[in-house]
Amino acid sequence: MTPSAAPLDHVRHEVDRSIREFLDRQRPLFDDPQLAVLLSTAEGFLTGGKRLRPAFCYWGWRAAGGGEEPGMHMAAASLELLQASALIHDDVMDASDVRRGMPAVHRRFEQVHADSGWHGSAGQFGEGVAVLLGNLLLVWAGEMWRTSGLPAEALAVAQPVHDHMLTELMCGQYLDLLEQAQGESTFEGALRVALYKSGKYSVEQPLRLGLVLAARARHDWIDRLCAQYGTQIGIAFQLRDDVLGVFGDPAETGKPAGDDLREGKRTMLIARALAEASDVQAQAVRSLLGDPDLDARGVERLRSVIEDTGALAACEGMIKRYLDDALHALEQAPIDETARTALAALAVAATTRRT
Amino acid sequence: MTPSAAPLDHVRHEVDRSIREFLDRQRPLFDDPQLAVLLSTAEGFLTGGKRLRPAFCYWGWRAAGGGEEPGMHMAAASLELLQASALIHDDVMDASDVRRGMPAVHRRFEQVHADSGWHGSAGQFGEGVAVLLGNLLLVWAGEMWRTSGLPAEALAVAQPVHDHMLTELMCGQYLDLLEQAQGESTFEGALRVALYKSGKYSVEQPLRLGLVLAARARHDWIDRLCAQYGTQIGIAFQLRDDVLGVFGDPAETGKPAGDDLREGKRTMLIARALAEASDVQAQAVRSLLGDPDLDARGVERLRSVIEDTGALAACEGMIKRYLDDALHALEQAPIDETARTALAALAVAATTRRT
Repeated sequence: MTPSAAPLDHVRHEVDRSIREFLDRQRPLFDDPQLAVLLSTAEGFLTGGKRLRPAFCYWGWRAAGGGEEPGMHMAAASLELLQASALIHDDVMDASDVRRGMPAVHRRFEQVHADSGWHGSAGQFGEGVAVLLGNLLLVWAGEMWRTSGLPAEALAVAQPVHDHMLTELMCGQYLDLLEQAQGESTFEGALRVALYKSGKYSVEQPLRLGLVLAARARHDWIDRLCAQYGTQIGIAFQLRDDVLGVFGDPAETGKPAGDDLREGKRTMLIARALAEASDVQAQAVRSLLGDPDLDARGVERLRSVIEDTGALAACEGMIKRYLDDALHALEQAPIDETARTALAALAVAATTRRT
Repeated sequence: MTPSAAPLDHVRHEVDRSIREFLDRQRPLFDDPQLAVLLSTAEGFLTGGKRLRPAFCYWGWRAAGGGEEPGMHMAAASLELLQASALIHDDVMDASDVRRGMPAVHRRFEQVHADSGWHGSAGQFGEGVAVLLGNLLLVWAGEMWRTSGLPAEALAVAQPVHDHMLTELMCGQYLDLLEQAQGESTFEGALRVALYKSGKYSVEQPLRLGLVLAARARHDWIDRLCAQYGTQIGIAFQLRDDVLGVFGDPAETGKPAGDDLREGKRTMLIARALAEASDVQAQAVRSLLGDPDLDARGVERLRSVIEDTGALAACEGMIKRYLDDALHALEQAPIDETARTALAALAVAATTRRT
């Protein structure tokens, strides 16, 4: 299988190995029987995941002339720990029950508390442990990045990008909470959340990190490629996420059907639907969206509104345009040819995925 | 005022200035009116605090021969951001209402949500924002540490200590949650929590960081001083915290009277009280400790049991012994004399404080 045909598969094996290696380094601290569960839960959680962020980072590195190097695999893999941290905290903040087809981390520890007949609130215990495990993965993501084995000069150039990405991620998640709470559904608001919450941190910044690490400088062409290809694939990635959050197959997404509707997420799909909705349709959205007890019929009703108003087709059209524009920008960039082919395939994979 | 007479005051001004300087660097990212509140909340929170951790770090640095250096003030001050992160998350995990005499961060954002009549659960919104703000402060603590301006060689030697401290902090907080949930009250358990949750991260590791940064190496005498003076003052610091959590004056601690009792904290005071309690007294502890609605009378009843069983006097005796042993260890260390005097005063301040 050539790398260009399978840019994700090419990275997966090395990312998995790097994660195992890093966790093994932490193991001595966790030989205490009471602490062991923290490491094993992190390990279990980290076996899932598409490895998309490491792939963008790795292929950015190759694009700017980097070769195969264990340090790069380790640095790229650290982005998977960051993502694990964000998902575990996200599930607490959204009060989600399920992740990757399994009970969310806070629910698992809530269950342990309930089964053990411990003191205090089981829910509060579960949330507390999930906050701490997310924190642990967040600090480990930084440690793994810095101790990856890449040359200090390369890391020094990339570190401000890394720092910026983390601040941007927390701000993006805050904007997401705020939009949901304010219940406004404008195109601009939805695009902004898509870009800050997920787009930048899932695609643009991992790509930039790889490019800057290999180039050991922040060239104009890197910023151009990140601003065009990176931003557009980032937004399209999040729009695909939004579509899957409403229409995805639970067997593939690992989340219950219509979960985003139940959580009241203010996505581009919703903004588009409300802009074109009749009074009756708008009323249905207002009364059903964000209802924590939304059942299968309610999900079906909202899906119909989203399809009938043309919102679904409009979002698919946006995804296609962003993808086309990104691929065009990719053509112009002065990068390695194998990486160009891989980044094109990765762009398609990120925006047409079913999970 | 000489440094030796006021080792905290000596550091406070420079720590405050460093925090302002770091936050000013972040400001451009927060000129967005929706994001500004995150920065201003962080700023407000960071004006409080005893600056104890930066002081141990700074005087560790001076002890191993370091001089006045802006980079050191910045590095030491970063520990205050880490502490702010831990407190904001702690208040979420403990469902605490008040911190430093003000509503806890999650309660403040809950109130904003309620006052604005936004969608969804106000409580969930408040908790979500507090988790994110704590994350922001956690990643900033790392960034501030690394970009302090200290020489790269010094930071490289100290970085593993810093990484270890963060992992240990999360593990210690997990053990605290677990002890509280399991409701066991053994001396060993209480000591372990005191050491891991707070002692190491409040005293021993900040001190070690300062020592290692100045010495640019991990000498045996550093480990000895940290294991003796550092560990003992760390435990005594937490035991003082436990006493203040039950007997402290709300006007000074900034927390409601008897807050630790309401939260069901399994401290050394409780372990000691239960070990000596009559059946009636033990029954009172079991029925009142951890009751979220515990009123002033209940607090008074528990205080009486803790005093009458001799638990309070026993804890005060432990604090005194740890302090004496630590001061003795300090005498033996091959360190700068001004720093020795300051560390002695700091040890007294940390273990006899009223806030």
